[in-house]
Amino acid sequence: MNKNVALIGVSGYAGTILYQLLKNHPKVGTITLYGHRDVGKHLSEIQPDLVQYGQVDPVINQFDPQKIMKEADAAFFASSAGVTNQIAGTLIEADFPVIDLSGDYRLSDPKSYEKWYKKPAAKADDLKKATYGLCEFHPKLSRYVANPGCYATATLLGLAPVVLNNLIDLDSIIVDAKSGVSGAGKKLAPGSAFMTVNENLTVYKANRHQHIPEIVQELKNWNPQLRSIQFTTTLLPITRGIMATIYAHVAKGIQDPEKIISQAFIDTYEDKPFIKLHGSNLPSIKDAAYSNLDAIGWQYNPVTGVILIVSVIDNLLKGAAGQAVQNFNMMFGFNERIGLPIVPIMI
Amino acid sequence: MNKNVALIGVSGYAGTILYQLLKNHPKVGTITLYGHRDVGKHLSEIQPDLVQYGQVDPVINQFDPQKIMKEADAAFFASSAGVTNQIAGTLIEADFPVIDLSGDYRLSDPKSYEKWYKKPAAKADDLKKATYGLCEFHPKLSRYVANPGCYATATLLGLAPVVLNNLIDLDSIIVDAKSGVSGAGKKLAPGSAFMTVNENLTVYKANRHQHIPEIVQELKNWNPQLRSIQFTTTLLPITRGIMATIYAHVAKGIQDPEKIISQAFIDTYEDKPFIKLHGSNLPSIKDAAYSNLDAIGWQYNPVTGVILIVSVIDNLLKGAAGQAVQNFNMMFGFNERIGLPIVPIMI
Amino acid sequence: MNKNVALIGVSGYAGTILYQLLKNHPKVGTITLYGHRDVGKHLSEIQPDLVQYGQVDPVINQFDPQKIMKEADAAFFASSAGVTNQIAGTLIEADFPVIDLSGDYRLSDPKSYEKWYKKPAAKADDLKKATYGLCEFHPKLSRYVANPGCYATATLLGLAPVVLNNLIDLDSIIVDAKSGVSGAGKKLAPGSAFMTVNENLTVYKANRHQHIPEIVQELKNWNPQLRSIQFTTTLLPITRGIMATIYAHVAKGIQDPEKIISQAFIDTYEDKPFIKLHGSNLPSIKDAAYSNLDAIGWQYNPVTGVILIVSVIDNLLKGAAGQAVQNFNMMFGFNERIGLPIVPIMI
Amino acid sequence: MNKNVALIGVSGYAGTILYQLLKNHPKVGTITLYGHRDVGKHLSEIQPDLVQYGQVDPVINQFDPQKIMKEADAAFFASSAGVTNQIAGTLIEADFPVIDLSGDYRLSDPKSYEKWYKKPAAKADDLKKATYGLCEFHPKLSRYVANPGCYATATLLGLAPVVLNNLIDLDSIIVDAKSGVSGAGKKLAPGSAFMTVNENLTVYKANRHQHIPEIVQELKNWNPQLRSIQFTTTLLPITRGIMATIYAHVAKGIQDPEKIISQAFIDTYEDKPFIKLHGSNLPSIKDAAYSNLDAIGWQYNPVTGVILIVSVIDNLLKGAAGQAVQNFNMMFGFNERIGLPIVPIMI
Repeated sequence: MNKNVALIGVSGYAGTILYQLLKNHPKVGTITLYGHRDVGKHLSEIQPDLVQYGQVDPVINQFDPQKIMKEADAAFFASSAGVTNQIAGTLIEADFPVIDLSGDYRLSDPKSYEKWYKKPAAKADDLKKATYGLCEFHPKLSRYVANPGCYATATLLGLAPVVLNNLIDLDSIIVDAKSGVSGAGKKLAPGSAFMTVNENLTVYKANRHQHIPEIVQELKNWNPQLRSIQFTTTLLPITRGIMATIYAHVAKGIQDPEKIISQAFIDTYEDKPFIKLHGSNLPSIKDAAYSNLDAIGWQYNPVTGVILIVSVIDNLLKGAAGQAVQNFNMMFGFNERIGLPIVPIMI
Repeated sequence: MNKNVALIGVSGYAGTILYQLLKNHPKVGTITLYGHRDVGKHLSEIQPDLVQYGQVDPVINQFDPQKIMKEADAAFFASSAGVTNQIAGTLIEADFPVIDLSGDYRLSDPKSYEKWYKKPAAKADDLKKATYGLCEFHPKLSRYVANPGCYATATLLGLAPVVLNNLIDLDSIIVDAKSGVSGAGKKLAPGSAFMTVNENLTVYKANRHQHIPEIVQELKNWNPQLRSIQFTTTLLPITRGIMATIYAHVAKGIQDPEKIISQAFIDTYEDKPFIKLHGSNLPSIKDAAYSNLDAIGWQYNPVTGVILIVSVIDNLLKGAAGQAVQNFNMMFGFNERIGLPIVPIMI
Repeated sequence: MNKNVALIGVSGYAGTILYQLLKNHPKVGTITLYGHRDVGKHLSEIQPDLVQYGQVDPVINQFDPQKIMKEADAAFFASSAGVTNQIAGTLIEADFPVIDLSGDYRLSDPKSYEKWYKKPAAKADDLKKATYGLCEFHPKLSRYVANPGCYATATLLGLAPVVLNNLIDLDSIIVDAKSGVSGAGKKLAPGSAFMTVNENLTVYKANRHQHIPEIVQELKNWNPQLRSIQFTTTLLPITRGIMATIYAHVAKGIQDPEKIISQAFIDTYEDKPFIKLHGSNLPSIKDAAYSNLDAIGWQYNPVTGVILIVSVIDNLLKGAAGQAVQNFNMMFGFNERIGLPIVPIMI
Repeated sequence: MNKNVALIGVSGYAGTILYQLLKNHPKVGTITLYGHRDVGKHLSEIQPDLVQYGQVDPVINQFDPQKIMKEADAAFFASSAGVTNQIAGTLIEADFPVIDLSGDYRLSDPKSYEKWYKKPAAKADDLKKATYGLCEFHPKLSRYVANPGCYATATLLGLAPVVLNNLIDLDSIIVDAKSGVSGAGKKLAPGSAFMTVNENLTVYKANRHQHIPEIVQELKNWNPQLRSIQFTTTLLPITRGIMATIYAHVAKGIQDPEKIISQAFIDTYEDKPFIKLHGSNLPSIKDAAYSNLDAIGWQYNPVTGVILIVSVIDNLLKGAAGQAVQNFNMMFGFNERIGLPIVPIMI
C-alpha cells in the first residue's frame, strides 16, 4: 500500500530533489509540503520548473505536527540544521516515522553538536532514538533516521571495508575530499559566486568541516581504537558530485594486501545495489553523478605501503535526497532500489 | 647587453607561452625559431593570434646546432620528451647554454628515465652536466639547466622547508595533486575532450606519473633518509593551474610545530620573489594562475599531528615557460624577476 | 501490449540516451542491440556505466533486417548520416515501423541531401514514405519517421506559431542558435577539446549547417512564400542544451502584435505536453536541459517592430532520443508522455 | 615625461585591472588611489593578490579634487554610474583631464540618461564637454573622455564600416550580444551565482540594456537616418569576453557586397593597432580575451542578403580599463599601444 508523506522544506537543493524523487516514487501516495517563509504560496511560485503542464501545483502549508501525524505515514525534514531540532521533537517523541536530512540528529553527543554546529542541540533523549542512516550499514525498519551528510557518506562507504576488517593503521587516515558547488546550498556568498569558483580550486574548512564528527563517530562504532582523521574539503568548479580521495597505511603484518583489501570490498558490498565497485580502475565523478550510486575504486602502492581509495557520489542523491528515499524504502520494507536512479548521467 | 636566443618547438603550450615571454623580455634580442614538422612555415600559419598588426612574422627553421651556436647566446628546448635528447647533445657537449623544458635531462640516472618515460635515455655524461633548475634551490650561473616538471615544482617548493629542516616523518608524505587540462598538452585524446572533462574530476596515473622520480630524486638530495612518496594526480575541469595538497606527520619531538614550521617557511623563502607565503590562509589556484608565483599556505592539525601544505602554481608559467625564463635570468646574472608576470589574473 | 524494439547504434550519445529511455519505458519489452564495429561485445565493454548491478548485459548483434522484422515491432536507427540509408531500405520497403535519428530521411529532395550532407542520398521512393517527425505537427500513427535534427527542433517549434499564422515578414527571419558540445558527437576533434571550448565561444558553420535545409523545407510546408532564413550556429562551453534566439520583423498591418502573437503561441501549443510557454519571461537553457521539453518565450519590441523568440531544448532529448521516443509513443497510439522526463534538471 | 595619475575606485573589476595596467605603464609616474568605503585601508587589505613581494602597498585616500588637481596630471574614475557624476564635476569644470569608465557622461542628453539609468544626470554643460572615447573614431588630445561601455565598444566597432559607408539597411540591424560574468560586476546576485550560470545560458535585459542608448547615439552621429537597433544581451558561463553577433540586410543596389564590405573594413581599420580583421574566418572569444584587441570577422550570405558581423573583445580591457588606458595614451600624445596587451591569452 502506498505511503503518504510530509515534506518539510522544499526550497533548498535537497528538498527540491527529494520532491522530484517522491513524486516519481511508485510507493508514495500524496505529498504534502510544509515550510515557513513561503507558507501559502504555490510550489510553482518558488520553483517554476518543478510544476509542469497539467500537473497539480501544491501549496506550502504551515508546519503542523498534528496534521502530519494524522494524514501522513512519514515525514521528511529537508529544513536547515538548527531548524529541524526546533520543530521535529513532537514527531520523534510520538514515535512517528521521521527522516531528517539536516545534521541535527546525527551526533549522539549534544556537546559535540554544539561544538561543531555552534547551535543548541536537540534533546539528549531524542538524539538517542535516532539511527544514523548510512543505509548499507544499519538495520532495516528503523523508525527514526538521521540521514548522513554528503562528505560523510562518501568517506564512510570508502573506508568501511578496511576499517571493519582491521586492514589499516587507524592513525594514518587522510581524506582529501572535493565537492561541487551545490554542496554549499543556495545562500548567496562570495565563495559561491561564478567569478570566484570558475577556473579555480579552493580548500575550505580544512579539519573544521561539520561532517568530521559524524565520520569519526561512525568509524569509532566500527573500530573503537580509531582516534581521529585528517580531513580536507575542497570546492570544485562543477555543479554536482563529491570525490573522497582516501589514504591510509596498510596495517603491519597483512600478507598480500592487494588481494585481502579487494576481497574486503567485495565481501562488504556484494549484495548492495547502490555500491559500484571499480577495483583498481578508479572512478570519476561522472561515474556516480545524478545517480544514487557510490562508485568505489582502490589501488595499493607496494612502494609506500599506502592504500588509495577513491569514493564518488552525487552529493544531492546518495549524499542527501537519494539516501533519504533509500532510508524510506528500508523503513517500510520496500525494495531498496525503488524510485532511485541507478544509472549516472555520463553525458 | 641583450642575449639572442634560439627556441626549439613553438607549437606546444609551453613553447607558445615561452615565445610570448621572450618577446616581451627586455634583455632578449633576436628570437630564432626551430622545429621539425612546420619548417618553412611562418609563425602566423601555426599560431595566428601570436602575430599581431605590424609585428614581424618569424619563420620556423630546420633545427641546426651549428647555426644556433654561431648566432645565439642560449637555446630553449620546448620539444617533447624523447625528442630533446635526440638533438640537444651537440650543444651540451660544446658547453653551449641550454635550458630544456622536457623531462629528458631531469633524472641523473638513465635507468630511472627509461623506466618512467619508456624511451631511450640521454648519454650519462650529458645527464651529469645538467642542473635541476628549481630556481629557488640551485646556484646561479648554471650552464645547462633541466627545467623541472609542473607537478614537481609545486610539490618540491611546498615540501622543501619541512624536508630540509627535518620537521616531518619522511615516510608519511602523501601528495594529492590536481592539474588543469593544459598540463596534458595539445594531443587529441578522449581524456581531454570537453565532454569528458567538463563537470567531472578524474584521478589518473596514481603513483605512475613521470614527475614522481624527479621529486623523489630532489627530496633525497635534501634529505637522504627519504625513501618514497605517495603521489596522486587528478584532472580538474579548468584550463590553467596546479594545486599540490600535501600531507605529512610532523616528526616526533618537535615542540610547538605550528611556530617552528612557519618559521621554516619564512626562513627558506623570505628573499624569494616568486614565492608568496599565505600562512594558514590557504591559497586558491587563482592566487597563482597566469603568474610565475608559487603561493603556499599551511595548517598544522594538533589532533592528528599532520601538517597540511597547499602549494599552487600556474603549470605553464612557474611550472614550465616562466621558470625557464627565470632560469635564463639566473644563467646570465640578470634580476630573477625580469620579464615575468608577478600578479596573478584574479578576474 | 508491450513492444519489442531493435536499436541500431548504441555507442553515440543519442544511442546511449535512447537505450536508457527505452529501458525505463513501461511499454517497451525486449531491446535488441545492433551495430557494426562492436559486434559480439557486451554493452558493459563499451559503456560500463550503462550496465548496473544485477542488470542484464546485452550483446551487440550484427545488423540483420530479417531478424529485426521477425522479432521486433519497431526499429530505432541511431547510426550516423550516410550509414542509415545504406542499411534501412529493406525495412522501409517492407513497411516495417522505423524511427531514424540520422538526417538521412529528413529531406524529401535527394539533391538537397547530397548538397548539404555531401553523401549519396536514399532512394527517392523511400524518402517519400518518411514522415518528418516533429511530433507537435505531424499526424499520429506514422509508419516511418525521420526524427528531426536538434537545431531544427528548437527553431521550428519557436517559429511555428508566427509562420503558420502569417504574423511575420517571412524574408526577415534570423536565427542565432547556440549548442552545447554534446551536439558535436563523440568524434575527437580539436574543436571539441576542453582546451578549445572552455572559456570560449565560437561561431561555426554559419549558414552552412546541415539542419538548415530541413528547417526551410518545413517552414515552406507551413507557408510556401518563405524563401530562406539566416542561420548561425555557435558552440557553447556547456555539455547539454540548445538555445535558438530567433528574430523577425512583425508583418505589416498587425494590430496589437504583442497580444496577437501571444495568442498564437497559446493556440498552437495549449494541448502539447512538452511545450512550456514562458511568455515574456524568456527561458534559460536550464529550463529544458535533461528533459524532453521545449521552453519558449517571446518579447515584442515596439521600437524596432521585431519579435524576439527564445526556444530552448535539451539537444539529446527533445533534440534526438527523447523526440524519438515521443514518436514511438505516437506511432503505437500510446500517451505521448510515457517514458519521458518532463522536469528539467535545474540543479 | 611621465604623468602622475589619480585612480578613483579600485575595488571593482575595471578598477583592479586599470590599476595593474597603470602600474606597468612606462609613461605613468605615481598612482594615487581614492575611494569611499575603504578610505584609510591599504590596497593589500582589499586585494591581497595585487600587492606582491617588495612592492609598495598604497593607501586608499578620501576623494579630494583639489589634491588631485595639484598632484596629478589626469584622473581615472572607475566609480559606479551615479557616483561619478556626483563627484567629478569640480575636475571637469576646471578643465582637468578626466577619463570616466562609468556611464555617467556617455549620453549627451540628460533625459536619456535618466530614462536608462534611473538616476539623476550630470549637468548638461559637463555632458557637452565629454568626448565619447571610442578610440578608433575620436580625435586625439581630447581633454575629457567618457570611456564607452563594453557591449557598446564591441557593437560599434563591428558596425562602423558598414554604417559609415551606407552599406546596410539601417532599419534592419539586429545585435545578439553575449558576455562573460565579469561584465555583471562584483555585487552578489542570484543571477551571477555559480549554480545559476554554470551549464546554462540566459537572455537578460533584452532591449533594455543601458548600453543601447550610447550605441544608437553614436550610430546616429555616423548616419543620422538610423532610428533604432534590436539588441539582446546573453549571459555566458565564462569569466571574460564579449561576442557581438551582428546581422543586417545589405542595402539595395550594392554591387558585389562581399568585396565592397571587406574593403570598407580594411579602409576603416587598416592603421588601427587594436583592430584585428579576421575576414570570413570568424573570431572566437579567445581571439581577443585578455588583450585590448577587437577581433572582427564577417560573412555575406547571398541567399538572404544578410551580412553577419562577429566582433569580440575582452570586456574588462578593450571594453573598460584597456580602452581607458588607450584614451590616456591618446590624450597625452603617446603611442596608442603603450602599456596594453596586444596578444590574447589563447591557452
